[in-house]
Amino acid sequence: MKRLILLAIFIFISAPGVFSQDRDQDALFLKDIHNYALTESTIYEWLEYLTTECKGRLAGSENAEKAVLYTKSIMDTLGFSSTSLQPCTVKNWHRGDTEYVNITWGENKKENSKQLNAMSLGNSIGTGPKGVTAEVVEVHGLDEVEKLGRAGIEGKIVFYNRPMDPTQLRTFHAYGGAVDQRVWGASKAAEYGGVGAIVRSMTLKQDDYPHTGTMVYKEEFPKISSMAISTNDANFLSETLKKETVTMTVRNNCSPGEEAISYNVIGEIKGTTYPDEIIVIGGHLDAWDVGGGAHDDGAGCVHSLGVIEILNGIGYRPQRTVRCVMFMNEENGLAGGKEYAKVSNEKGEYHLAALESDAGGFVPRGFSFDGHADVLKPFYAKVSEWLPLLESYGLYFTTGGSGADIGPLKDQKGLLIGLRPDSQRYFDYHHTSIDQIDAVNKRELELGAASMASLIYLIDKYGLK
Amino acid sequence: MKRLILLAIFIFISAPGVFSQDRDQDALFLKDIHNYALTESTIYEWLEYLTTECKGRLAGSENAEKAVLYTKSIMDTLGFSSTSLQPCTVKNWHRGDTEYVNITWGENKKENSKQLNAMSLGNSIGTGPKGVTAEVVEVHGLDEVEKLGRAGIEGKIVFYNRPMDPTQLRTFHAYGGAVDQRVWGASKAAEYGGVGAIVRSMTLKQDDYPHTGTMVYKEEFPKISSMAISTNDANFLSETLKKETVTMTVRNNCSPGEEAISYNVIGEIKGTTYPDEIIVIGGHLDAWDVGGGAHDDGAGCVHSLGVIEILNGIGYRPQRTVRCVMFMNEENGLAGGKEYAKVSNEKGEYHLAALESDAGGFVPRGFSFDGHADVLKPFYAKVSEWLPLLESYGLYFTTGGSGADIGPLKDQKGLLIGLRPDSQRYFDYHHTSIDQIDAVNKRELELGAASMASLIYLIDKYGLK
Repeated sequence: MKRLILLAIFIFISAPGVFSQDRDQDALFLKDIHNYALTESTIYEWLEYLTTECKGRLAGSENAEKAVLYTKSIMDTLGFSSTSLQPCTVKNWHRGDTEYVNITWGENKKENSKQLNAMSLGNSIGTGPKGVTAEVVEVHGLDEVEKLGRAGIEGKIVFYNRPMDPTQLRTFHAYGGAVDQRVWGASKAAEYGGVGAIVRSMTLKQDDYPHTGTMVYKEEFPKISSMAISTNDANFLSETLKKETVTMTVRNNCSPGEEAISYNVIGEIKGTTYPDEIIVIGGHLDAWDVGGGAHDDGAGCVHSLGVIEILNGIGYRPQRTVRCVMFMNEENGLAGGKEYAKVSNEKGEYHLAALESDAGGFVPRGFSFDGHADVLKPFYAKVSEWLPLLESYGLYFTTGGSGADIGPLKDQKGLLIGLRPDSQRYFDYHHTSIDQIDAVNKRELELGAASMASLIYLIDKYGLK
Repeated sequence: MKRLILLAIFIFISAPGVFSQDRDQDALFLKDIHNYALTESTIYEWLEYLTTECKGRLAGSENAEKAVLYTKSIMDTLGFSSTSLQPCTVKNWHRGDTEYVNITWGENKKENSKQLNAMSLGNSIGTGPKGVTAEVVEVHGLDEVEKLGRAGIEGKIVFYNRPMDPTQLRTFHAYGGAVDQRVWGASKAAEYGGVGAIVRSMTLKQDDYPHTGTMVYKEEFPKISSMAISTNDANFLSETLKKETVTMTVRNNCSPGEEAISYNVIGEIKGTTYPDEIIVIGGHLDAWDVGGGAHDDGAGCVHSLGVIEILNGIGYRPQRTVRCVMFMNEENGLAGGKEYAKVSNEKGEYHLAALESDAGGFVPRGFSFDGHADVLKPFYAKVSEWLPLLESYGLYFTTGGSGADIGPLKDQKGLLIGLRPDSQRYFDYHHTSIDQIDAVNKRELELGAASMASLIYLIDKYGLK
């Protein structure tokens, strides 16, 4: 009770111009938003279509193009002032049809042999049909490769096995603390003469699913093949290495793809009063080729479309210009996000706020903020006025960034915002074959859209000044 | 930032005696608790055993006895001062092997026929081998039966079809708003001459799984059979009834069971300084016969055992007496909870606090409180001092009760507390065949135990005065 009183005092201190009548009206409006999302929304069906009919929609692929046309067709029913496709140049990548990782150890190689659950990492080259066979050396980070030097690495396949830190409550922090192995592991190994790189999958779960994801070659070193293996297999390999020398054969035939034109899909509602202040909401439409891209990031796409469906559904007409953007190519290039900001800058536009959903379709826990140092503090003070309204929906403000696709807008000095769903289950599915519709709970997904619609409504109504 | 400052001021206002050194120490301790839970805990394995080897453990059943012995055997490894079985008299119930609900409509009964996904409700009698065939009348509540009266109900099967309210964010509130149909529907129908009762399953999901649960007969009316049908089938039946007269045949052979002696399983750590102030943590060990009882309430049992595992694991020795109780018979009689309070009262014990986990193994969102009017406010003020510590783990205080099993302790004027996990998915599984281990996420489960251990530590360290 004391806490409620203090929160009430807080509202009065920090927002003397906001009357309780407004606050009551806002509370009712947020209730309408949530009611609509939980009873009328069709976003779960949209996601079902995206994850089945447009699955594996890596930028430049046929299914990515299907996803472009599908989300454009949804936008065309949502009452936007205009919808459009914004071209951007993406680079495809082909997984190929071979992903073979086998280990042998001890004297009896026939008996002591195990095929591991493996997946090529995005952007990796293939080994060629003969594959690569070499001794395995386990490391726990890029620095350990440097320490072992050419003497310990040359001619070997380097196995990166530093797990994500399970004690991190925010699993994205755990991911951030381990993913350098996946991104830079191959070039670091090649720098010291390594002939292949195998990475423990980026997940906190112990299971048999390998997780793909982007890797990057440094031009100055030879390109070597790079794959992820499941956590169960990483544990097995590590245990085996404690007792025996292990020889690994890696074979894959992935290859760089061609350049292609793809598209951001954009819908715009022109603002009635402040049309030059743009608020953008979005997610990325592309997804790794191996799964349905349900949580990453079909959820973010239908969240964003859902915001418009909800605001339309309850008859809200924004004062500011609201854009909904399905960004293309977040997973392996960010061409869409960069192009959107570039075109916007060329037009001299000003994005007051940008909100991205790219952390899954789980129950929303709040928002995190980013922005240019000049503006972040006053903006944060402004949105904090609305915390009591949001808290009644279990939404709080937390640390964390905003979103990769909206990052390039930072120079426009608007507020960048990330939806923060609960993150405990996210990396169970991230970049796997099981990131499918049945991993998404309908109500949790709908509440994500409602959370975003609530914040967008408040920003649109009150601005950020 | 402002908010943080205000929270800091708040701590000083409400807890002048608590120094920041203590607060820092507590923060470190809570971090230890969470680290242990996320890296060392074995509660997921315990739950796996409970839900597979002791599945369908309705009180008085063979598997309930297995669950008693299994959890007692776990307790015997956890360093309690003593462990014991507390006898209580329960009444079993037998589902039988027939659960048949079929509808026909229109002129061609052979073509227009559909068997529905149905389950007998706990405590229901059976129809006998011939079953009951009658016309269906749809209602949306007990009051509607009264309104239709004998003229509208006599000789018919009453179909209760008021859904749980999807706009309730706390799904337990939605359950509370619909479950009277399941509990009292049969007797209300019988009061007006109805010959059977069919209830829409208590879930917010549209699917094919029927949900069982307890129903109660009023002695003054004839006992008629009562079953639940899946929400998809309830929708189908309702749509059909809009166009046609529907005839239903119901056949089941469930039957009242015999009285049996079962047990609460109790472990106790004698307090070092205040042994007469008891803090109890618990869940209920029994579960409906149709599933694994993973979320309801295997999760609560292993949460409670997990609190002891964690506090032991990090070397904390409680000042107050801490008991861990696996309550028996919550689902159909509450014999265990009643017996525990009765024996405790007879001994003149005082429970300073009781914390129950009976809302699933989902990610913890906080706690709700209940208690005697004389003590609730000061107790609540005391626990509120710890909110800043708990908030950093995403834990907040919310409305809601405590737990059915600890309710009978209310007269001892301690603080009754319920763990509040996220509730969006709970009723997808509640009382169904799919409430199994694979519906529980390991980290979400572990965080529940960590949350409980955190609050128990604070209560034990500071008391509630």
